[in-house]
Amino acid sequence: MKQLHRPEMFCWSAFDETRNVDFHSVLWVHEDGNVLVDPLPLSDHDRRHLDTLGGAKTIVITNSDHTRDSERIAEAFGARLFGPRTETKALPEQCEPLGDGDEPVRGLRVLELHGSKTPGELALLVEATTLITGDLIRAHSGGTLHLLPDAKLDDKTKAAESVHRLAQMTDIEAVLVGDGWPVFRSGHALLGELDRRLSQP
Amino acid sequence: MKQLHRPEMFCWSAFDETRNVDFHSVLWVHEDGNVLVDPLPLSDHDRRHLDTLGGAKTIVITNSDHTRDSERIAEAFGARLFGPRTETKALPEQCEPLGDGDEPVRGLRVLELHGSKTPGELALLVEATTLITGDLIRAHSGGTLHLLPDAKLDDKTKAAESVHRLAQMTDIEAVLVGDGWPVFRSGHALLGELDRRLSQP
Repeated sequence: MKQLHRPEMFCWSAFDETRNVDFHSVLWVHEDGNVLVDPLPLSDHDRRHLDTLGGAKTIVITNSDHTRDSERIAEAFGARLFGPRTETKALPEQCEPLGDGDEPVRGLRVLELHGSKTPGELALLVEATTLITGDLIRAHSGGTLHLLPDAKLDDKTKAAESVHRLAQMTDIEAVLVGDGWPVFRSGHALLGELDRRLSQP
Repeated sequence: MKQLHRPEMFCWSAFDETRNVDFHSVLWVHEDGNVLVDPLPLSDHDRRHLDTLGGAKTIVITNSDHTRDSERIAEAFGARLFGPRTETKALPEQCEPLGDGDEPVRGLRVLELHGSKTPGELALLVEATTLITGDLIRAHSGGTLHLLPDAKLDDKTKAAESVHRLAQMTDIEAVLVGDGWPVFRSGHALLGELDRRLSQP
């Protein structure tokens, strides 16, 4: 796994040939038990790395299109699975529901987004400074945040309102997107740029 | 291939299990013929992508440890190979020498670095704003530039002087490292941070 911007945060990735971007999964090494977000299948190497870092106790799925290898990894590590409360029917049966304001792990705040391709996509805010997004906010070109393409959005106005809300969170430094290039600095400024682009007529 | 911060710049990557970082190669789509830097082996998908973007006319090897798949790719595309003038003995025979101030392609300026693990490592500056580095400057954690570990450096004082020179180039926005996380914005500021860390006693 690759270290991210904090010594206790890591990711592993897979290149997607259809979109020409990397997909990412996040590991947060946490003293109450490690957290995984949207885990892709692990290579043998990354599985061993995760073992040495303490395995996983909590897995959060941001949306029902990002279940990926969650069930298998949850079983292997005896981890609890969580996912959006409004998408439970499309999630693994044992998935526990999360909604806006929940804090399944100390320091991990759940934010509900709206208008995306699934009804209840979540974003996660780590200690107010690192935002983890699933599908709605992405970065297919480096150093710029993008919204999911219009054709995939359920409601662009609601999606833009969700971005606007995130853009008010002035402490955000990093934006770890599920698809594309992560942002490690000036996350608040880049969310502001996206917010302004979306509010232009 | 993944798009970088400019619509005509791309990269492809390979995860290195020994260092837990991605290695990267850069493509610059150029109207005088495309440029590749330190090309890793191409997957069939990326080879087709490169074909659709016009193939390659120029390949630059930043240091003799980054020859990678350059010879095979040069042969496949009929590209010219370039590398550091002081490392010609360790480079493919047909490699043409480059030194400080050379401009093998319009808009691509060569900078010689010193003190690295090979004697004449090059950095490349694209249109004054994008710096491409090979081994000396890297980013194993996101959003921070690092120097090659001391044990690998030939001369840390000279390496620090090379970083100091780059840190004076105020137009640099992006720093595309060969190893680790690319920087797409505020490259000048991050080079300045590295420069200050290295100048501390």
